Amino acid sequence: MIAEIISVGTELLLGQIVNTDAQFISQQLSELGIDVYNITTVGDNDKRLKEAVALALTRADIIITSGGLGPTEDDLTKQTISDYLGLELVLDKKTNTDLINFFAKRNSKMTQNNMRQAYFPKGCLILDNGMGTAPGCLIEQNGKTIIILPGPPSELQPMFLNSVRPYLESKSENKIVSRVLRIFGMGESAVEDALMELIDTQTNPSIATYANFGEVTLRLTAKVKKGENENLLLDPLEDKIRKIIGKFIYGYDDTSLAKVTADLLKELNVKVAIGESVTGGLLTSSLVDISGISSQLIEGIVCYSNESKINRLGVLECTIKQYGAVSCETALEMAEGALKSSGADIALSTTGYAGPQTDDEEVGLVYIGLADKCGSYAKKFYFPWNNRANIRKITVYNALNILRLHLLERKKAIELYK
Amino acid sequence: MIAEIISVGTELLLGQIVNTDAQFISQQLSELGIDVYNITTVGDNDKRLKEAVALALTRADIIITSGGLGPTEDDLTKQTISDYLGLELVLDKKTNTDLINFFAKRNSKMTQNNMRQAYFPKGCLILDNGMGTAPGCLIEQNGKTIIILPGPPSELQPMFLNSVRPYLESKSENKIVSRVLRIFGMGESAVEDALMELIDTQTNPSIATYANFGEVTLRLTAKVKKGENENLLLDPLEDKIRKIIGKFIYGYDDTSLAKVTADLLKELNVKVAIGESVTGGLLTSSLVDISGISSQLIEGIVCYSNESKINRLGVLECTIKQYGAVSCETALEMAEGALKSSGADIALSTTGYAGPQTDDEEVGLVYIGLADKCGSYAKKFYFPWNNRANIRKITVYNALNILRLHLLERKKAIELYK
Repeated sequence: MIAEIISVGTELLLGQIVNTDAQFISQQLSELGIDVYNITTVGDNDKRLKEAVALALTRADIIITSGGLGPTEDDLTKQTISDYLGLELVLDKKTNTDLINFFAKRNSKMTQNNMRQAYFPKGCLILDNGMGTAPGCLIEQNGKTIIILPGPPSELQPMFLNSVRPYLESKSENKIVSRVLRIFGMGESAVEDALMELIDTQTNPSIATYANFGEVTLRLTAKVKKGENENLLLDPLEDKIRKIIGKFIYGYDDTSLAKVTADLLKELNVKVAIGESVTGGLLTSSLVDISGISSQLIEGIVCYSNESKINRLGVLECTIKQYGAVSCETALEMAEGALKSSGADIALSTTGYAGPQTDDEEVGLVYIGLADKCGSYAKKFYFPWNNRANIRKITVYNALNILRLHLLERKKAIELYK
Repeated sequence: MIAEIISVGTELLLGQIVNTDAQFISQQLSELGIDVYNITTVGDNDKRLKEAVALALTRADIIITSGGLGPTEDDLTKQTISDYLGLELVLDKKTNTDLINFFAKRNSKMTQNNMRQAYFPKGCLILDNGMGTAPGCLIEQNGKTIIILPGPPSELQPMFLNSVRPYLESKSENKIVSRVLRIFGMGESAVEDALMELIDTQTNPSIATYANFGEVTLRLTAKVKKGENENLLLDPLEDKIRKIIGKFIYGYDDTSLAKVTADLLKELNVKVAIGESVTGGLLTSSLVDISGISSQLIEGIVCYSNESKINRLGVLECTIKQYGAVSCETALEMAEGALKSSGADIALSTTGYAGPQTDDEEVGLVYIGLADKCGSYAKKFYFPWNNRANIRKITVYNALNILRLHLLERKKAIELYK
C-alpha cells in the first residue's frame, strides 16, 4: 500500500511553523509498513489543494491531509476535497450538539463560522476529536481512502493513534518492525564501507545508515506477517553487523551516549566528578539531562579561568606556565584534582580551544582526561572545524565515550573476579 | 517570483527527522518577498525526484532542493537533476583539493565515494560549504534557477545566508528588510493584546509575532526600493512599540539573552562566577557559548550534591537541614559562597526541582540567587511543566535575565555618577 501526505496551511509555506505533522504521520505509516513516496505542502488555497489531491490520487492508495479544518474562512480542506470528489457536505447532528455544549461549557458564544466544523462529506466516517472542536473524517471512494485530519499536533496525534492507526492496521497482513543501532567513533562513509556487502545484499531486513552530528545510526527494518516474530530476522543480522563494527555500537533505538553512560554509572554505583574548561558546563549538563543522575554525580567544576583550575582543582601554576592551560599535563591534573577534591570514584576533565581563532591558539585542539584510583590518562583530539559550538559538542560526546568505555572495562573486570 | 522547495531524503518519508530545512528556506523566501506555493518531499529515488523537478519547473521560477549531496550511494540529487537538465557532471578541482585536505587534516582515509562530492553539473555556480564536505550549486537554465543545497541544517543555513540570499536579493528591484525585536518576560498573547491596534493597522512595515520557547520575537518587515533607507520606515514603528512594551525588549535580531548579558559583562568589565544546581551546568554553558567570555567568567560550580554545596560554596549544613537544598536561604548562600570563594564581582546561583516527580519535591519550584559586594537576593519561581529539560532551560533564561537587569542598573548608576 502506498500513502501520500498533503499538508495544508499557508503558515507552513511562510516558514512560521515546522511541519511536525508530516513527520508524525510518516513515522506512523512507516511502522505500519505503508510506503510514503511523496509529501506535499500547499497553502490554504482551493485550486492548489485540488491539484495536489488530483495528483496524489494518481499515485497513492491512501491520502492523508492535515490542517485546514478550523472554523475560519481559510480553513477549506473538507469543502475542497468534497467538491473534488463530488460529495455533498451534510450536517452531523452529534458534532453540532458537541460544539454547542463545548461553547456553553466555556460560557463563550458560538459564532456562525464554528458551525462549519459540523459539516462533513456525505457518507464519510467521522473521526472524533477529543482535544479540539474540529473532528476529522475518512472517505472511501473507488478503492482509495482519503483521511482528513486537523492541523494542531495535539489534536492530530491522538486522532491518528485512536482512529486512523486501528483502521489501517485492520487493512494490512504484515507488520514492519525497526531496530536502531547507535554508533560512535566511526563516520557514515566508514560504516558503509565496512558494511557494504551486507547493505547491498540485504533486502528483508533492510539496512539504512543515517549520520547525525557526531554519530551514525543504523536502522534494521524487518517486514513480517502479523503474528510472526521479527526477531528471528533482526537478531542474526545484528550479529553479523556486530562481528564487523561491534565495538563502535553503544546502544539501541532512542538512547544517547549520555543515557548509556549514566546507566552504567548507576549500575556500577560509581560516583563521578567533572572538571571542565573548553566544554564550559556542557559535559556536566549532558549528564544532568538524565533523570536520576543526582546519586552518581557529585559535582562539575567549570574552571574557565586559570585561577579556578588552580584553586578548585589544584592544578599547579607551574604546569600551566610550562605546558599551557590546553595541554596533556593540565588535563591530567584537572582530572586528578577533581577526583581528589570531590571524593568521587572517577573524574573526567576537558581542556581545549573552541575558538574563535587567535594567533597562538590552535582552534579544535582538545585534551580529555580521566582519573580514578588506579591512575589517570589523557587523550588528545583535533577537531577540524572552526565552529565553537560544534567543537564543544563533539568534545562532550568524546568525553562521555571515554567514560563509557572505561566503565565497560571496569564492569568486565568485576564480572571476571566475581 | 515564485519558488518551489523540493526536500530529498528517505529519512523524511520515514519520519526519522522533521523537515526544518523546508521551514528555514520558506522563512527566508518569505522575508525576500518570494512566494512559495508548493513544498514537496521525495525519497532518495531517481524517478520520483525527476518527476518532482519536472512538475516544479512547470509552476515555479526558482527551485530549491535540500538533501542528497553526501558521499553515499543514495545521495543522488546532483546526478539526477543534471541528468534531467541534460548537463554533464564534471570534476571541480578546488573542491577535490579541499576534500583531500579535509581528510588529511583528520588523519582519516578518504574513501572513493567521497570523490562524488567534487563533481558538479557543467556550468553551474558552486556554493561553498564551510561546515561540511558537500558544496551546493546553482544552475541557471531557460530563465529558471535551480539551487541545490545539502541536507544538514548546520550546512544548509550558512550556505543559504552567505550565497543564496545575496543571489536572490540581486535579482529583485525591491529589498525587504526585517528587524527583529526580542522580548523576554511577556507571553505571545499578552504581546499581541498590547500591540493589537498597531498590528492591525500596519501594512508597510508589517508586524509579525512569533513565540519561541521562553521568549517572543516581533518581526518588523519593510519593503523599499533598492537604495532607499528602510530605517525611515522601521525606526518610527519601533519607537511606537517601545512606548508600549519597551521594558521587555532585550535585544535585536539574532542576539540572545546570553549574548546581551555577556556583552554587558564585557562592557562593564564585571567578573562573574556561577553556583548552579538544578540547571546542572547549562547556565555556565550558556555564557561559554559566547566567544570572548573567558575574560569575564571565572568559574561555574555545578554543585549537584549537598557535599559539593557545602565544600565548594560554603553553604552551611544547618541551612540545608533546616530549609532544604531547594530554598531561598540555600540559593542566597550559594550565590554568596560563589562570590566569596571565586573572587568574582557578581555571582549567580540556581537551585530547584526539575523532576521527575517524587513524593516530597515540588517539580518546577526554582530559586535563583544573585550576590555582589552590595548584598544578595533570591527570587522564587514556579514553572508549571512536568518536563525536566524545559524547567532547566527556562531557569537559565530567567537567571540570565536577572543578571542582565542587574548589570543594566549598575550601568545606569555608573553613568549617573560620571
